[in-house]
Amino acid sequence: MPKFYGRTHEIQEAPIQKLLIEVSIPKDVISLGQGVPFFGPPKEAILAASEALNKHGYKYTEDAGILSLREAIAKKLHRENHINASPDGNIMVTAGGNQAFINTLMTITNTGDSIIILSPYYFNHFMATKLVGCNPITVETDSDYIPRLEDIFEVVTPKTKAIVTISPNNPTGAVYPKHILKEINKFCSDMNIYHISDETYEHFVFGAIHQSPASFDKCLEHTISIYSFSKSFGMPGYRIGYVVFPSHLYNEMLKVQDTISICAPTPSQYAAESALNSCPSHAKSFLPTMEKVRNIFIEGLNISCVDMPITNGSFYFFIKLHTNKPSWEIAKVLIEKYGVITIPGEVFGFPYPALRLSYGNLNEREAKEGVKRLVKGLNKILG
Amino acid sequence: MPKFYGRTHEIQEAPIQKLLIEVSIPKDVISLGQGVPFFGPPKEAILAASEALNKHGYKYTEDAGILSLREAIAKKLHRENHINASPDGNIMVTAGGNQAFINTLMTITNTGDSIIILSPYYFNHFMATKLVGCNPITVETDSDYIPRLEDIFEVVTPKTKAIVTISPNNPTGAVYPKHILKEINKFCSDMNIYHISDETYEHFVFGAIHQSPASFDKCLEHTISIYSFSKSFGMPGYRIGYVVFPSHLYNEMLKVQDTISICAPTPSQYAAESALNSCPSHAKSFLPTMEKVRNIFIEGLNISCVDMPITNGSFYFFIKLHTNKPSWEIAKVLIEKYGVITIPGEVFGFPYPALRLSYGNLNEREAKEGVKRLVKGLNKILG
Repeated sequence: MPKFYGRTHEIQEAPIQKLLIEVSIPKDVISLGQGVPFFGPPKEAILAASEALNKHGYKYTEDAGILSLREAIAKKLHRENHINASPDGNIMVTAGGNQAFINTLMTITNTGDSIIILSPYYFNHFMATKLVGCNPITVETDSDYIPRLEDIFEVVTPKTKAIVTISPNNPTGAVYPKHILKEINKFCSDMNIYHISDETYEHFVFGAIHQSPASFDKCLEHTISIYSFSKSFGMPGYRIGYVVFPSHLYNEMLKVQDTISICAPTPSQYAAESALNSCPSHAKSFLPTMEKVRNIFIEGLNISCVDMPITNGSFYFFIKLHTNKPSWEIAKVLIEKYGVITIPGEVFGFPYPALRLSYGNLNEREAKEGVKRLVKGLNKILG
Repeated sequence: MPKFYGRTHEIQEAPIQKLLIEVSIPKDVISLGQGVPFFGPPKEAILAASEALNKHGYKYTEDAGILSLREAIAKKLHRENHINASPDGNIMVTAGGNQAFINTLMTITNTGDSIIILSPYYFNHFMATKLVGCNPITVETDSDYIPRLEDIFEVVTPKTKAIVTISPNNPTGAVYPKHILKEINKFCSDMNIYHISDETYEHFVFGAIHQSPASFDKCLEHTISIYSFSKSFGMPGYRIGYVVFPSHLYNEMLKVQDTISICAPTPSQYAAESALNSCPSHAKSFLPTMEKVRNIFIEGLNISCVDMPITNGSFYFFIKLHTNKPSWEIAKVLIEKYGVITIPGEVFGFPYPALRLSYGNLNEREAKEGVKRLVKGLNKILG
């Protein structure tokens, strides 16, 4: 048997799967785990995918994606994000936001380069950075999970190739203020590095305004933006997203795309095009429901043993626990004894006991019951 | 504007797209270019995908793929490939064979390791090896494109992590004899390295028998096998394939999968399951047609200015040209002046003038016309 030599030893296991394997899950468990919305795709998108299945959807598309989808994306970017991107040189359709991220890293880095990510981080960004042989440099955000500019700026070295921001944030829900994103974007321009802006949760804001850093970069020269259909259009299983980037990267991005996936799944591309053209505000119609669920969390978790910064975006809260116990263990007890799944802070590289709560997948009844169980469990475990 | 730093500078552009961008393509061009079959998926598979779209196909599946698909794959492997693989520890569903390959490389290598690939090689394997920061060591095959064992064995060093074989081969069509595959497989076992066997074209053999190296590795300890639905089931756009590997790699493979793609596209997984269960011999029913087309090539290209080893598999011929002109230029003239697309040998790392001819996508009429144009063009250019 060959020895196992791989780079994967240095990264954690797919955290959600690992957690769920370690425990026995009660039948009526309520999941505040995986970050998925409660709604599915627009009917029109399902229909478009279904038609494509029969017609031409079994063929490869261009590596960058079908032209009409890229054109629809360009229009959406102009309309919603105030980004002027050309369908022919700035846009690539990918098999989801994660592939967009690793495509980007493979394009802009060499082995040994470093990438700045903000902590608590989206674990996948950390894993991808390690897998491509680069060093993730993590910088802690402040107590409200907002970037501390000076802390970021001081860790940049000649090896740094990009600063990554996620707003609205996974795992904290923080929506970064315009001036913060603008300063990070300008700093990247000044330092001749890239700003990678993951905007997967762009449509999930509550009393806040989503800002796209590429809109500050008039000539689109140093900003790379990642978007996904998984959350906004309720189609994670379709594996479809896109990345917007400076045109000088186009040929290089194509090489990586061809190597990893050739093209995004064709039927999903047709679904995405239809979704953009017929239901651009799909997510919006579900926000009132989500806001009710959100308020159940805000009211219910106003308890003394946790500190819950009230953030304004995505569908996560990231609660800090007043305890010394490792949150991995707490999360396990919460599942087995209290019937509620949360994700421990460790997997997001957070150095203090904490839990990520995802509320996107719940209705009001489930939310009430979930919060009840969570509060009962936390009071018992931490009290 | 940031400088461009990336590792992608060292690899070629997605070759087919690059070639087609460089020329003006006549309207009635006949393509012997991209390696796609002329047929689409079984009706049952389209129906299954269509049903999944509506029911649950918009949700993530387990990272490794839906269990019932992995079970169907295990049965197929047992029945057709004589491989005993467990759905729970040896099989992962991927977004196509390319993703299976790069997942594998990321799992078994560290930066700076080397991978042995046989020349002429499938360009994607070369590109993937470079992208993960490893060194592709290429070893020329013999004049019939069969591996020369001693040449392979002598380039193995402590940095070598795997030998890659593709049988039936892309780009040559060679079907490797059993004893050759067996010796390579045994050698890998003796050297404690992996044998990566790409069997994308397993169902396309003409008067030859396909052999799966993992069937020689009784305990599945050092063989990694890659399969695809793209060719056998006519569904390249669905992006669906799978990889079979030693169970000691399972957790590590999962990490990579989670990072790159989370899971393969869900509707495509249901299509694949249905294809395996209802139409396992889908490709077989098209082989008689393909054989007629194949014979048109064999007969038509019996001309003095080319050397065409008659190989027995996939749907490629790799012809050597008696000339000193670069084949990239010849391929361009063939498109623009003679209306026929071929892929130049350079992109497969072949050091002599050569062209890959793909005949999988043609009917008899197109094949006759395509060969006519090709012969006319080659006689003119080389004569």
